[in-house]
Amino acid sequence: MKKLVFVRHGLSEWNALNLFTGWEDVDLSETGIKEAKEAGQKIKDANIEFDIAYTSYLKRAIKTCHYILEGSNQLWVPEVKSWRLNERHYGALQGLNKQETADKYGADQVQLWRRSYDTLPPLLSPDDPKSSIHDRRYQLLDKQSVPGGENLKVTLERALPFWQDHIAPSLLNNKTVLVAAHGNSLRALCKHIENISDDDIMGLEIPTGQPLVYELDDELKVLNKYYL
Amino acid sequence: MKKLVFVRHGLSEWNALNLFTGWEDVDLSETGIKEAKEAGQKIKDANIEFDIAYTSYLKRAIKTCHYILEGSNQLWVPEVKSWRLNERHYGALQGLNKQETADKYGADQVQLWRRSYDTLPPLLSPDDPKSSIHDRRYQLLDKQSVPGGENLKVTLERALPFWQDHIAPSLLNNKTVLVAAHGNSLRALCKHIENISDDDIMGLEIPTGQPLVYELDDELKVLNKYYL
Repeated sequence: MKKLVFVRHGLSEWNALNLFTGWEDVDLSETGIKEAKEAGQKIKDANIEFDIAYTSYLKRAIKTCHYILEGSNQLWVPEVKSWRLNERHYGALQGLNKQETADKYGADQVQLWRRSYDTLPPLLSPDDPKSSIHDRRYQLLDKQSVPGGENLKVTLERALPFWQDHIAPSLLNNKTVLVAAHGNSLRALCKHIENISDDDIMGLEIPTGQPLVYELDDELKVLNKYYL
Repeated sequence: MKKLVFVRHGLSEWNALNLFTGWEDVDLSETGIKEAKEAGQKIKDANIEFDIAYTSYLKRAIKTCHYILEGSNQLWVPEVKSWRLNERHYGALQGLNKQETADKYGADQVQLWRRSYDTLPPLLSPDDPKSSIHDRRYQLLDKQSVPGGENLKVTLERALPFWQDHIAPSLLNNKTVLVAAHGNSLRALCKHIENISDDDIMGLEIPTGQPLVYELDDELKVLNKYYL
């Protein structure tokens, strides 16, 4: 039986400010740090021994990964970071206040941007100084592959190759895997693993800082799914 | 010009207790954390942008690596951990008080164990419960390759393949490299890079938490060497 653990990072500084975050590299809040440490304690109490940890290029997920590994006394476990596990890119909405955006564009439009599977947010142009193209961490991505904004559908399309090339092979090789990432990149992977429909996936909410354990069979079909 | 930065981790909890540490996975002390954060600030002030970070399997080096990357706002940089960058294995001396060991074996003998290039410490037998063979992190090493104790010569012999296969290729590929490791694993690499003699290397002391910058030419010969 293979074991895969997802942890969504805890509250960030921008959650507290009610801003759209996406690929903005904001830090965990004090609450978020507490959530990550508690997740580490739960992993320790459950005696889960990881063979490899995957995380995104964003510090709120990376630090969550580190707190979990440190809290369960396995900070030495190999860790691989990838932009493919990043949060959904929120395009031109990044850094905007959610309430102010609703006042400007209407609550229905904002709800659509937030909850529709395939509606894109307003895109950031590559010429915009806020475009992720200018961020050194994406310099090895060809420029047309750096998103200007994503919906959940696109998030899944760019996360899936990481599942196929890294996470799934590790599981098939009987490694116990930690993925410390984001609400939408994890939701995208859940959709794939559990074969959830486009409609149903938007109703799936992964709570922050709660380790989600998948027990999988030899074909990576879900045997059990539970939160610690 | 290629750039390589070594950082020796700061004070650990066992430094304060005057114990032989080696492969024992003890944590940084408060002072050690402060040293690591200051090293991160120095890297930031010097505008050094890493492409890859290497560290050991021991948390005092891993955490130093994380504090440096976080403090210089590049926690997303890929990080590779290896047992080959571990501190020198101190064999059966690990966990013993340095003063008590000197009282028991004589100061000259302890001095020899600490300062000779090729004198081995008393070895830990694989049957000893304290042997590193029983540590999960070394389970993918064949048992006869797990050391029972090392001198600096042996430390260099097992660190050198990591230089040859990872650090040097990254530098030759024009990557700026961070190595966050230990007094003796770093000293061993310095010996190789600078072609220091067996006698002279024991006089080289790398201060804790002080980023040591090597500027290297296309053949990895040292052009400049300085502390930040």
